[in-house]
Amino acid sequence: MNDEKDVARTIIALERAALDRWGKGNPSGYLEISAPDVVYFDPFLERRLDGLEALTRYYETLRGKIRIDRDEFINPKVQVCGDAAVLTFNLVSQVGEAQMRWNCTEVFQRRGGRWLIIQTHWSITQHLK
Amino acid sequence: MNDEKDVARTIIALERAALDRWGKGNPSGYLEISAPDVVYFDPFLERRLDGLEALTRYYETLRGKIRIDRDEFINPKVQVCGDAAVLTFNLVSQVGEAQMRWNCTEVFQRRGGRWLIIQTHWSITQHLK
Repeated sequence: MNDEKDVARTIIALERAALDRWGKGNPSGYLEISAPDVVYFDPFLERRLDGLEALTRYYETLRGKIRIDRDEFINPKVQVCGDAAVLTFNLVSQVGEAQMRWNCTEVFQRRGGRWLIIQTHWSITQHLK
Repeated sequence: MNDEKDVARTIIALERAALDRWGKGNPSGYLEISAPDVVYFDPFLERRLDGLEALTRYYETLRGKIRIDRDEFINPKVQVCGDAAVLTFNLVSQVGEAQMRWNCTEVFQRRGGRWLIIQTHWSITQHLK
């Protein structure tokens, strides 16, 4: 149980650090903790991206273009399954007066003692009802 | 490696069967293969739902109201990590003349020989660029 709590803390700290760099226009935080075989969804893509090389190409087009002034990292939860861990959270990000609301899933796998992202899914919380 | 292929086939068959029932207005297919501690995102909710009880309450409000005439299940991929497996795919669903495009992640965990969903994330493929 302690191990699960440690894993949760580690995973959340990894995400938080990568997100902080992302918010300053630097995608390297995410790229450095993504596995070679990562798969990736976001709402701006036509379909799933497969592999770190494809993700790197995509993120490099965004380098320097993202700025998040502040965010609210809501209710992060980590489900640990052996050497896999599923992080889910909601995020509200603020850029000037504009607010964006996100759902996020990150699946990590422990490989050689490091936790690496093998699946990222960002989507917009639309609350269409 | 054969085991991974078997797991992939099993996971995809579970999803396909649940989705077929869903498309006829029956959420029970998903509810029957979701774990008690499942977490769930879709674009119509304000934030993540936690637990099968909350998911059941939500899905019961949709029972009989969904109809998918046909769908295209695009490029399903299963990443196996011990007793966890991450299924990702795109889906195009057709209801009359209306088309919806989806990104989907399902994380399964093997418990007592059964694969159960512990995380579902549906989002709309918006392709906003």
